[in-house]
Amino acid sequence: MGPGPSGVPKRVLAAMARPTIGHLDPEFILFMDSMKQLLQRTFLCEYGLTIPVSGPGTVGMESCVVNLLEPGDTIVVCINGFFGERLAIMAERCGAKVVRVHETWGRAIDPDKVDAALRAAPKAKVLAFVQAETSTGVLSDAKALARLAREHDCLSLVDAVTSIGGTPLRVGAWDIDVVYAGTQKCLSAPPGLSPVTVNDRAMAMIKERKHPVQSWFMDFRLLQGYWGMSTRRSYHHTAPINALYGLHEALLMLHEESLELAWVRHRRHHNALRAGLKVLGLELVVPAQERLPQLNVVKVPQGIEEAKTRDWLLKVRGLEIGGGLGALAGKVWRIGLMGHSCRSRTIEVCLRALAEVVDDPRKGRVALRAAMDEL
Amino acid sequence: MGPGPSGVPKRVLAAMARPTIGHLDPEFILFMDSMKQLLQRTFLCEYGLTIPVSGPGTVGMESCVVNLLEPGDTIVVCINGFFGERLAIMAERCGAKVVRVHETWGRAIDPDKVDAALRAAPKAKVLAFVQAETSTGVLSDAKALARLAREHDCLSLVDAVTSIGGTPLRVGAWDIDVVYAGTQKCLSAPPGLSPVTVNDRAMAMIKERKHPVQSWFMDFRLLQGYWGMSTRRSYHHTAPINALYGLHEALLMLHEESLELAWVRHRRHHNALRAGLKVLGLELVVPAQERLPQLNVVKVPQGIEEAKTRDWLLKVRGLEIGGGLGALAGKVWRIGLMGHSCRSRTIEVCLRALAEVVDDPRKGRVALRAAMDEL
Repeated sequence: MGPGPSGVPKRVLAAMARPTIGHLDPEFILFMDSMKQLLQRTFLCEYGLTIPVSGPGTVGMESCVVNLLEPGDTIVVCINGFFGERLAIMAERCGAKVVRVHETWGRAIDPDKVDAALRAAPKAKVLAFVQAETSTGVLSDAKALARLAREHDCLSLVDAVTSIGGTPLRVGAWDIDVVYAGTQKCLSAPPGLSPVTVNDRAMAMIKERKHPVQSWFMDFRLLQGYWGMSTRRSYHHTAPINALYGLHEALLMLHEESLELAWVRHRRHHNALRAGLKVLGLELVVPAQERLPQLNVVKVPQGIEEAKTRDWLLKVRGLEIGGGLGALAGKVWRIGLMGHSCRSRTIEVCLRALAEVVDDPRKGRVALRAAMDEL
Repeated sequence: MGPGPSGVPKRVLAAMARPTIGHLDPEFILFMDSMKQLLQRTFLCEYGLTIPVSGPGTVGMESCVVNLLEPGDTIVVCINGFFGERLAIMAERCGAKVVRVHETWGRAIDPDKVDAALRAAPKAKVLAFVQAETSTGVLSDAKALARLAREHDCLSLVDAVTSIGGTPLRVGAWDIDVVYAGTQKCLSAPPGLSPVTVNDRAMAMIKERKHPVQSWFMDFRLLQGYWGMSTRRSYHHTAPINALYGLHEALLMLHEESLELAWVRHRRHHNALRAGLKVLGLELVVPAQERLPQLNVVKVPQGIEEAKTRDWLLKVRGLEIGGGLGALAGKVWRIGLMGHSCRSRTIEVCLRALAEVVDDPRKGRVALRAAMDEL
């Protein structure tokens, strides 16, 4: 129940152990087509390049940045946590001009501030933001921000690492141009791949670049040749076959449940956990409207040692939760309710253990009842 | 029996399916230390940054290139196949000046030509070459080439994707500065990771760079913070936990056999396959002194359709072999004897099937006997 990786179901783990076949085997080519279709159903997009990049979410992030930006381009980056700043640093390493729109850690991005920034930077090519900030547990309004990008004739670049599969994300309907995501949060596959989708508008911009993409491995035009038409694939790199088996199985499980019901499940379990935490006297940091259901950031009560407690939870109670990052280090715990780890059993384990931490086991039973009432 | 991925043993596949734990879990930190030690024993190096990069071999290649080179730097790249040219292109995308030393496809790199190129480019910072060219089945003399680099005050950068675990490679004794490798060839782990080693000399050069490394994800200084001292690790990305389990198990198996005995096994089975192919009238392309035991490039006999035959072998006989790349496309087959796929049983299957292809099953039995006599 940390900020990811989440628990991985046995079925996905078993898929990882299937025999490794060749990346040029005709069966694998069919498998790649199936993977692309499952990802399109997950992003709810219908066009463009939609593939799993062969590297962790950070590689997905950097792939999008280096393809969209050329030296001298301007990008507006919204920063309300750890990962927005990472985006900005990557953009700087491309020689881009970065306009940072800062927001308080623990608060959603303010569309008005973004609008003002875009007005002040009329040449901006890209607006980038994190839909679900894993460092602070905040959900920003991706639909509104993507609309702003369109109004200002910018491409939108969205970090959906923690949102995908846990929170509504409608890439096509919201007209988002480029998204990267992660496998190890609400999709409950092991870490190591980054699903990415690039629409036709963004792909056309990439094809008109004046400079080659600085990374050969991350070059979307080359990746399109590898993942593209199944009739004529060009060798690019050796795909991580077994990791792809795992992601494929996790996506099958997601769509067996249905994407929409998975979103509902995350919201419902978040409400349950919140009700239980309230009984224990544990406060959430993020205002109600801006809370990410799958990542609950809790203030550490006075008199309790943050890191020591997490250590005890892991070693003695077998429960992993996360600490704070950056400005929130030492002050908060981050409790994940992601994918396979988002179920009544995990909430039960968590509330029982936290009741011991706040030293009131009787309250634990009340908290549990309050939580279960919400499910 | 293609050019990789090789067959993966069940024990390694089972390791891939172990429960995913957190990348910041204290148990995982210990696991990372064990991984680094196993990789040092495999590279036979004793110092520097020795880690598995979280991406396929191509990411390992690009990581080394972008860390070693700054805009304006000169690199001498030896090209005797597909992967040398890829190295050169990546270097160009860093803004480096690339001096190409071409060699005929199917022949080893000639140290005299390299010496002349280094004399003509006295400011060269890096000499890069592929020890084992997967595209042509050629082994070049890594020890001699690394010595040349040292004599000319260059750093040596070696592609060991196909050589590691199958052919002698002594990074420390040969004083090689930087090496990247693959997991899916002679190590018989699934693809997706790239073991890399960077010695102290190269790391010191990297620390003195004037420009930041263009890739944030591949920046070795940041990766050193993540994989470095176990007492104080900085978060960089979420490691592909399950892929690392697989590689760790594959390395354990390698050292249970012993690295030196694995080299001997590859050589012995190569001799066996060669003896069998000879009986079938199938010729090897590469001269005897320059042959890579783990990748045997065979001329397609006249009157036999190259791709159609491979297709038949895969679909009807369940045997995967590779086709030619670049100048060799359509003219050769590439038969891998890598890691777990390097054993008497695979040779038997291969020779029996190829005897059918050359339409002489009786010869097949003779070929098999000739092969087994070598084991």
